[in-house]
Amino acid sequence: MLTLREMQPFTLFATAGIHQVLAENPIFDALNSAVVSRETIALNQPFELAPGLTATLFPVPGKVPLYLEAGDVQTDLIGDQTVGVHLQTEDSSAFYIPGCALLNDDLRSRLDGADLLFFDGTLWQDDEMVQAGLGQKTGQRMGHMSMSGPEGSIAAFEDMRIGKKVFVHMNNTNPVLRPDSVEKAQAEAAGWIIGQDGMEIT
Amino acid sequence: MLTLREMQPFTLFATAGIHQVLAENPIFDALNSAVVSRETIALNQPFELAPGLTATLFPVPGKVPLYLEAGDVQTDLIGDQTVGVHLQTEDSSAFYIPGCALLNDDLRSRLDGADLLFFDGTLWQDDEMVQAGLGQKTGQRMGHMSMSGPEGSIAAFEDMRIGKKVFVHMNNTNPVLRPDSVEKAQAEAAGWIIGQDGMEIT
Repeated sequence: MLTLREMQPFTLFATAGIHQVLAENPIFDALNSAVVSRETIALNQPFELAPGLTATLFPVPGKVPLYLEAGDVQTDLIGDQTVGVHLQTEDSSAFYIPGCALLNDDLRSRLDGADLLFFDGTLWQDDEMVQAGLGQKTGQRMGHMSMSGPEGSIAAFEDMRIGKKVFVHMNNTNPVLRPDSVEKAQAEAAGWIIGQDGMEIT
Repeated sequence: MLTLREMQPFTLFATAGIHQVLAENPIFDALNSAVVSRETIALNQPFELAPGLTATLFPVPGKVPLYLEAGDVQTDLIGDQTVGVHLQTEDSSAFYIPGCALLNDDLRSRLDGADLLFFDGTLWQDDEMVQAGLGQKTGQRMGHMSMSGPEGSIAAFEDMRIGKKVFVHMNNTNPVLRPDSVEKAQAEAAGWIIGQDGMEIT
């Protein structure tokens, strides 16, 4: 959002479904079309981001954004509004998946052997916001799998072959954000890195 | 925008025209209507913000936001989309006017005798962005009167009876933002305070 009023040229790559959501919001017309072009990207079709660097968008189980919810909400919808991105160079492979409701077989096979994974770390446990008295929503209701427990992401990724795993997109209730928490130590002992603002990975 | 996803209760006071613009943007539905209420405020009708504190919205010459511009754009439109706010207690009076194309007679008479004024300080001179090679727009085209020159706000307010005058809403090209600039010294010599992030006035 902070770039909307700037005159900085960039390309907005998104699926047709995400471009449609943006088009329905006049506020996004603040992005001057003379300097910001919008490219529609098909799922599962690699495209070149820069010489030697390709990207591929792929569907991830999730839900529509909160402000578009209506009636019964499917929280593990597979469509083109919740996606991950696969970044590839000739000899390395990284995934960025900031929101994910479920690690399904499709994702398992995609991620197998990746050098680097950034993954949805919204909550530590599913009812953490409810327990803290900060809301009625569980992680599952918000379309996020939590870190801990038998259904959690730490357990789900335990046997997978992935070089480096980084949690991103933590909610401010997530105890892994506290430097001295037991939960942070547990996540790190399980081989995860807790993402931080300004973190750079080479 | 930063409050859109929080569950913090507040009331959004705005004119009918501004509420209409917000309603046309589905993104603003991210403000949960169960915790954020929207109240429509008529121009020139004082309403109570808190015990002993009233506010009044009034029209200020300006233009529609950039993303709603279409065809010929009137930059000194008087309507209900560009407004100022008059804050009053029993014995003091302050005005907040972050965007203003022109100091007209209506504004002059409103502001006369105010204890405190926060006023549009977007640009130092009308063609400053053009001169800097940062854009083709003048201040006038953007619906802002500039600080300097015979048509500028410093000259326009010179003879008015106002207790304290503070410039706000400076563009990042405005030289008054530089602590050691000649322009900042000139504005201060003319009785203006250059607003800063975190400034508090009692």
